Amino acid sequence: MLEKVDLKKKLGKVEYKELIDELRERLGALQRQARDLGIPVLILFEGWDAAGKGTLINELILSLDPRGFNVYSIGEPNEDAVRRPYFWRFWNKTPQCGRIVILDRSWYTKILADRVANGAGAHGLQDAFHDSLSFERQLSDDGTLIIKLFLHISEREQRKRLEKLEQDPATAWRVTETDWEHHRQYNKFLRAIEEMMQQTDAECAAWTIIEAHDRRYATLKIIATVIGALEKRLAAVSSAANLEKKIPLETPPAASALPKIFASSILAGVNLTKTLKDAEYENSMKFYQTRVRELEHIIYSKRIPVIIAFEGWDAAGKGGAIRRLTQDMDPRGYTVIPTGAPTFEEKAHHYLWRFWRNVPKTGHIAIFDRSWYGRVLVERVEGYCQEKEWRRAYKEINEMEAQWVSFGAVLIKFWLHIDKDEQQRRFEERLANPGKQWKITGEDWRNREQWELYEHAVDEMFFRTSTTYAPWTLVEANSKEYARKKVIQTVIEAIESKI
Amino acid sequence: MLEKVDLKKKLGKVEYKELIDELRERLGALQRQARDLGIPVLILFEGWDAAGKGTLINELILSLDPRGFNVYSIGEPNEDAVRRPYFWRFWNKTPQCGRIVILDRSWYTKILADRVANGAGAHGLQDAFHDSLSFERQLSDDGTLIIKLFLHISEREQRKRLEKLEQDPATAWRVTETDWEHHRQYNKFLRAIEEMMQQTDAECAAWTIIEAHDRRYATLKIIATVIGALEKRLAAVSSAANLEKKIPLETPPAASALPKIFASSILAGVNLTKTLKDAEYENSMKFYQTRVRELEHIIYSKRIPVIIAFEGWDAAGKGGAIRRLTQDMDPRGYTVIPTGAPTFEEKAHHYLWRFWRNVPKTGHIAIFDRSWYGRVLVERVEGYCQEKEWRRAYKEINEMEAQWVSFGAVLIKFWLHIDKDEQQRRFEERLANPGKQWKITGEDWRNREQWELYEHAVDEMFFRTSTTYAPWTLVEANSKEYARKKVIQTVIEAIESKI
Repeated sequence: MLEKVDLKKKLGKVEYKELIDELRERLGALQRQARDLGIPVLILFEGWDAAGKGTLINELILSLDPRGFNVYSIGEPNEDAVRRPYFWRFWNKTPQCGRIVILDRSWYTKILADRVANGAGAHGLQDAFHDSLSFERQLSDDGTLIIKLFLHISEREQRKRLEKLEQDPATAWRVTETDWEHHRQYNKFLRAIEEMMQQTDAECAAWTIIEAHDRRYATLKIIATVIGALEKRLAAVSSAANLEKKIPLETPPAASALPKIFASSILAGVNLTKTLKDAEYENSMKFYQTRVRELEHIIYSKRIPVIIAFEGWDAAGKGGAIRRLTQDMDPRGYTVIPTGAPTFEEKAHHYLWRFWRNVPKTGHIAIFDRSWYGRVLVERVEGYCQEKEWRRAYKEINEMEAQWVSFGAVLIKFWLHIDKDEQQRRFEERLANPGKQWKITGEDWRNREQWELYEHAVDEMFFRTSTTYAPWTLVEANSKEYARKKVIQTVIEAIESKI
Repeated sequence: MLEKVDLKKKLGKVEYKELIDELRERLGALQRQARDLGIPVLILFEGWDAAGKGTLINELILSLDPRGFNVYSIGEPNEDAVRRPYFWRFWNKTPQCGRIVILDRSWYTKILADRVANGAGAHGLQDAFHDSLSFERQLSDDGTLIIKLFLHISEREQRKRLEKLEQDPATAWRVTETDWEHHRQYNKFLRAIEEMMQQTDAECAAWTIIEAHDRRYATLKIIATVIGALEKRLAAVSSAANLEKKIPLETPPAASALPKIFASSILAGVNLTKTLKDAEYENSMKFYQTRVRELEHIIYSKRIPVIIAFEGWDAAGKGGAIRRLTQDMDPRGYTVIPTGAPTFEEKAHHYLWRFWRNVPKTGHIAIFDRSWYGRVLVERVEGYCQEKEWRRAYKEINEMEAQWVSFGAVLIKFWLHIDKDEQQRRFEERLANPGKQWKITGEDWRNREQWELYEHAVDEMFFRTSTTYAPWTLVEANSKEYARKKVIQTVIEAIESKI
């Protein structure tokens, strides 16, 4: 998932100038309000060596009243710390009411290094994540606002920076053998970091990735993230205070209107020009469809359940892809489950209830045309559920999928991606075709107006629910042929790797 | 901890008659309110074989409108269930809005049986607990009220009941070889049950132990527990609704004034007549004090940290016990930390912060005169913190202690217990002695008035924080000599078992 993050983002000097002063002023004002309300704030900087933590921390504190914060650098533990339980030194540094603590590295640094160096057994690692989460949850329950930033750079950028540091006699000392050692293990770290983010991304302490190639971009995104978190907390505090005082509720302040540049990261990077020659398509589909049928029989006899979820833009071609996938399959072995608006009975239960009810038996295949991700997509964007409901849904979904996979299920999740122009073309085509007019409703046009909100929701969905055990497959779907082939190929590979 | 539960509780026919009708009526009314508000309720009956689950479920549903609930018996999973992830059949049985589901056994039954039969490795077991908790949390977050009851009987009572069932031809079929097999493993199950309760006792789904020897007592306690949970939920719902409608808040309905008989269970069973002859005391203390000093040097060289917490009634003799314990110790190796009202700085942090700061280095001993348990004792009873704060403190404390112990610390927790008469005698003695008058303040007399509330808080503290890794030691302290000897002996044993 991290490798999909678009690291090319940058900001020109002029654009930066236009934004930075106002943001700094806002942050300063927010700091004063948080101080007056006695809110403790803990900001964590994690990230690759040479990602620029020091520089960016400096950029952040430029906006802050120096009487209100402390910066602590977390290096190797000294003897006092080694001789006490691991979290002792972090407890000692927790911010008191009304103060901000900024940590240059944190409890995660050692966990990551141990993980990569010793391949720390799954068990010890689980304990470390568990202890981290309980530490953060305890502080958050007590009122601390926690902001966890991860500064991300590519392997190449890291090498460039380390070399540059080494060449300058003034900074050469900063590059140690360990840095190079870590650099050589970039990919191992990448995997470990992803796992860490999945396991420790909590509602009360979520991770934010900072694309850190461009200093101006990273500075703005960090400041904007801190502003967003503070504004949200202050809105919550003030609405709670109003309730207590029985003052009529005001609408909470609008979320920071942040520059567009911070929007969608993963979707923006998808290459939608991929296509396929007709002949190639026809031939390969025949071959794959036969193979899918064979696999259907194999999983039946091996009693492996298979669950396939299709999500994607309206008119992205979900139906067509499902039809091509199942064309030659034995209908006794699979079910297609369309997910529409919930029925009365479904509404009277937990929103995951209906998906649990439709879990396939071992040996069977369930294909969901739209799925349990509705909660974090349409329900989120259209306001059909409360924010706290879709926020906790990420974890609920991950837990559900983990149970399915550890039971032995093959789980495949597709996002069919097209761009806005392509959607327009398809809508118009449908309107022009009497046989397809029924497919298009006023709702489709309305959804289209929310494109940016959906983009943002999809991005967050990828980030929070792409797990090692149930990753998303992003299907480039401007070409229907290409998309259909990628879908069926992915299904085949996923099943083959299980049997 | 379970073995300390007082199973001798019973209720006379007359007393029962006096209470039952009113409780049944209240429960019926609450069911109707919950239905109207659309609250789903899930009631779990777990417990020993022959503990009377069937009978007691019948007693409970007598009070309920039969159109509003379902009872499901959870036996061996059928083929449909075996071929799906474990929680599938439980998801299928979750109550919809406004309905009550009563389960005769639950997801815990198989987890327990597997644990005892196969000694399920720590890891698989952790997964099972984790999945159970996430299932319950998801339902609870969505509004389901969860009540988990454990019907407890002694090994002897179980044998008696199984034999009686076997002797009656009408019920003999109900006793299977598995029941006897489980009975022979009573102690193994006891341990497994305790572990299960510790690991799955969540704020949103707490366990309640039902002492099930006496049918009348158990019936009343079950009904009262369900009433208490419903009243609490309804009060929360109605106060939230009032807030939304901006109607001035009414005081929430008082918690059910339940019969005294449901109060303290563990403390009531303590035998306070234990005493010691003077000569015996003098001799053994000399010996033990020398041994403690030796051990202090051993743990210093082995770098083992030791943490000792003293809690107990006012005038129970904490100070005296600490003095006798440390009398011959090397003062460079230990610190006594008195825990008073928090300072300004301490109040500006998480309440565990000051205890984390005082964690001893490896090789050192920290003795806390009163401790982090203040949160669930004095702060709870005196209302110095909110209910949700002391409720979540149980878990926070368990997590903190787990981190200390897994770091390698020896952790010992004492509750010094005296009865109310003995306290009175000691207060008067202090008043009569000019050298001790300072020890007694108005606060002590006020605390005394809250004796029953404290008893209840202590009981709950034992139940929720007696863990396998950090059990409580209950010290019978009406005799100071006996108490001091038990304290020093316990410390010696705990350290010796570590080195």
